[in-house]
Amino acid sequence: MPQQRRAQLTRRAILIAAATEFDLVGYEAAALNAILRRSRTTKGAFYFHFSSKEAVAEALVEDYAAGLSALRREWLERGLDPLSTAVGLTVEAARRVERDVVLRAGLLLSCRRPGAVGDGWDGLIDRLLHESAEAGQLEPDADPAAVARVVHAGLVGAHKIGADFSGLSERFVEIWRVVLAGVAREGALGRPEILGRT
Amino acid sequence: MPQQRRAQLTRRAILIAAATEFDLVGYEAAALNAILRRSRTTKGAFYFHFSSKEAVAEALVEDYAAGLSALRREWLERGLDPLSTAVGLTVEAARRVERDVVLRAGLLLSCRRPGAVGDGWDGLIDRLLHESAEAGQLEPDADPAAVARVVHAGLVGAHKIGADFSGLSERFVEIWRVVLAGVAREGALGRPEILGRT
Repeated sequence: MPQQRRAQLTRRAILIAAATEFDLVGYEAAALNAILRRSRTTKGAFYFHFSSKEAVAEALVEDYAAGLSALRREWLERGLDPLSTAVGLTVEAARRVERDVVLRAGLLLSCRRPGAVGDGWDGLIDRLLHESAEAGQLEPDADPAAVARVVHAGLVGAHKIGADFSGLSERFVEIWRVVLAGVAREGALGRPEILGRT
Repeated sequence: MPQQRRAQLTRRAILIAAATEFDLVGYEAAALNAILRRSRTTKGAFYFHFSSKEAVAEALVEDYAAGLSALRREWLERGLDPLSTAVGLTVEAARRVERDVVLRAGLLLSCRRPGAVGDGWDGLIDRLLHESAEAGQLEPDADPAAVARVVHAGLVGAHKIGADFSGLSERFVEIWRVVLAGVAREGALGRPEILGRT
């Protein structure tokens, strides 16, 4: 195995081990030794990649941000109608966070930062709902900015309420269903299957 | 002034001073000396009421819980229709938290506790929405449990997103407006003025 590839695998193993430890015992309580044991990595290999537990946390936050940016780009480039894009993108983000311990750790660590601004979801949802209104997908009396604020608050709240992340994507679907019942025009969602059971 | 009354005023002055300090610099950073200065209380008087800063925090949490219980009882006893009760009660709770630094500190300190369950708002909103459905206030195809979960998530999220609590009651009104647009029957809200501008 080429050296660079091996290094990448070690880095990834450390991130997964750290994320799993953070998930189990919390960031503060997670010991470097437990992360090393879990990743089957030597101290030397660890310090080749990271200077400390804090540096691993930093990398998890960065990987999370990069992963979500890629997901957003992917959905925005699909060329779906804006309302389907808003629903599909947020629900898929929730589904990924549910399933991927590394993303989950990155999200939780991002939220712990002072002044965390929520990764710009509020701005993105606002933009997509304004585009939905322009495309005639919303009822004429619906205020896209208000709808965006309510959906964003619901998504943030659903994430805060849950004891863990299981079922997060279903809760996101439910929020969109209830909100769109009042503000989306009949048949406006280009991809109604997005609101099907997850 | 009778001694008991004076003791009550001192206790209240300490709670207001502590809540204000917590609001300004955060609970961890708040110094007992700063609380004493702000409350114009001697150390002796302080220790007559509280054993420590932690004990003040405990009292703020208890006063917050008691204050909200009283507010709930008050609204439930008014005998309004259940949907107006749900809207009016949550919006008034937000308005009080906005205006009252002691309640605000109690709420923030409650949220910091591990296993904080959100004061039972989820159960209360769920119950009132089921009663609204039974009273024919919701569209027949609206699922009251789902609507309750979405509203509760929105209220929690609105509180988490805001940098401070200003405008919280307006955000609550907005959530109810957007959600009820799709699920409440036309003219079902007995007190529509509750959704007027706050």
